Amino acid sequence: MSLLVVGSVAFDAVETPFGKCEQMLGGSASHFSISASYYTHVRIVGVVGGDFSEAEQEVFDKHGVDTSDLERIPNGKTFRWQGCYDYDLNVAHTLDTQLNVFAEFKPKLSEDSRKARLVFLGNIQPDLQREVREQIPNAELVALDTMNLWIETARDSLLRTIKGVDVVIINDAEARQLTGIPNLIKAAKTILSWGPRALIVKRGEYGAALFTTQSYFAIPAYPLESVFDPTGAGDTFAGGFMGYLSSQEKLDEAAMRRAMIFGSVMASFNVEEFGTERVRRLTHEEINDRFHTFKKMTHFDEIPFSRAVTGDR
Amino acid sequence: MSLLVVGSVAFDAVETPFGKCEQMLGGSASHFSISASYYTHVRIVGVVGGDFSEAEQEVFDKHGVDTSDLERIPNGKTFRWQGCYDYDLNVAHTLDTQLNVFAEFKPKLSEDSRKARLVFLGNIQPDLQREVREQIPNAELVALDTMNLWIETARDSLLRTIKGVDVVIINDAEARQLTGIPNLIKAAKTILSWGPRALIVKRGEYGAALFTTQSYFAIPAYPLESVFDPTGAGDTFAGGFMGYLSSQEKLDEAAMRRAMIFGSVMASFNVEEFGTERVRRLTHEEINDRFHTFKKMTHFDEIPFSRAVTGDR
Repeated sequence: MSLLVVGSVAFDAVETPFGKCEQMLGGSASHFSISASYYTHVRIVGVVGGDFSEAEQEVFDKHGVDTSDLERIPNGKTFRWQGCYDYDLNVAHTLDTQLNVFAEFKPKLSEDSRKARLVFLGNIQPDLQREVREQIPNAELVALDTMNLWIETARDSLLRTIKGVDVVIINDAEARQLTGIPNLIKAAKTILSWGPRALIVKRGEYGAALFTTQSYFAIPAYPLESVFDPTGAGDTFAGGFMGYLSSQEKLDEAAMRRAMIFGSVMASFNVEEFGTERVRRLTHEEINDRFHTFKKMTHFDEIPFSRAVTGDR
Repeated sequence: MSLLVVGSVAFDAVETPFGKCEQMLGGSASHFSISASYYTHVRIVGVVGGDFSEAEQEVFDKHGVDTSDLERIPNGKTFRWQGCYDYDLNVAHTLDTQLNVFAEFKPKLSEDSRKARLVFLGNIQPDLQREVREQIPNAELVALDTMNLWIETARDSLLRTIKGVDVVIINDAEARQLTGIPNLIKAAKTILSWGPRALIVKRGEYGAALFTTQSYFAIPAYPLESVFDPTGAGDTFAGGFMGYLSSQEKLDEAAMRRAMIFGSVMASFNVEEFGTERVRRLTHEEINDRFHTFKKMTHFDEIPFSRAVTGDR
């Protein structure tokens, strides 16, 4: 009974208007697993090169992240991404991408990994996502992320992959691009008609929404006076969401709604510092404090309007 | 005990990708008062010309909107606005504005109007807003709306007016422009530091937020699969917000939160048809149905995370 993530483990170089970091642990599987580790046992499927050192390994070890299926290629170099943000922190500008060992990545799942109860297919080529999914036919819940690159270059494969998962976790621009439908509510219906039982749309500073064929749930973002580095916020959200679900017996709508809040809480911490720095040193008290704040900032009394009991006329 | 609105009564000509209307009742005071009429007794302070006919008057009469202080200038023409929208319905393109009798508008308040318990200063020149506000010193709650034109051309006057009101109701672009601060949470703090006890930020399809010095409340928009004509949505929101508040004895935070929902409900109906058409024929059952839907789409159980009671490790 555990959570498996397949995705990138990378070295990121990031520059924002508030600072610069030449090299830090990044990649979807890193952000996801560190976030999820606060809720459950996580295993990573991925690949790194000889430059992946003890220091990075220790980060995973400290959080109990299982890296048995993190392949090492001693003669290769780890995936590197270099990006920058200007004052509009919603838009990442990629300066350089070196796939390195990731270019030839073929996910290899051990016996234990194939027993995972929940699976997150991080943002990698959709053929690879499907290969992983097919190796874990008995998973109780499989979610996937994707990006504009795959929507443009591998749409057919992506649609086949989406058909086989339970939850799609993307941002609003991706939902619109994927369907060609500007209205988000219509776009969501279309995506759900392809097979998944839930769609989560991340809206950055505007929060997130959960669509199912039966229901709609929408939450604001945690109010932050400053965002330092948004890199990895989406994967950190997914880590909180899937990690929390993994800790629950029932994966019903009520659990998914709470998972949306925990995902948002984790993402709100992620953006406060570079890379995984803030999320690495969280406490459960800090997490639950923000969870409670979400309740306070969305609560209202359900008292329908009635002239009879109010009424100044 | 009633609600007073000062603002424009106009004839709008609107073209959207979905249709065209050559002339319909519009203006901030019209949208506001028809919306508020579902909750309370509303009085309009404004001005119209000789072209304002029985048909328009009947709309107000049917909703019990008091037009005693709606000045008539038989030789003049009513304010006219012509605009269009392309598929991005968030942006109105003004094609023509004829101020007509509105150019020389000087709000004149009767004895009865000066007794209003709540006042909404619709989007007019800030000097005029202040003149009205000063004539009702005993109002329990005064709110104002404004726009980019006044932020650019009459900022000092606008700041003086804001200082003297209880609630500011604007959209997110206006909040940023007014303060010069891109981060909305910081911008909100700045506006509250000028005097008002509450700030409401309308975010279109992303919902709305209520800021006070003590609290933050944020709600999504009602999910609509199509928006037909967004003209007047902001004033319709304000009408639902202020109208509901006017029906309540206590104007506390809990009432304001419910008022935010009723405002959003009214705005969601407004955009479904041209001008005031949909809002004119609402029932309280329809309103309360959407109020209930808001509760359903924002509710989650407040169960903090605990390894002790869950835990797969």
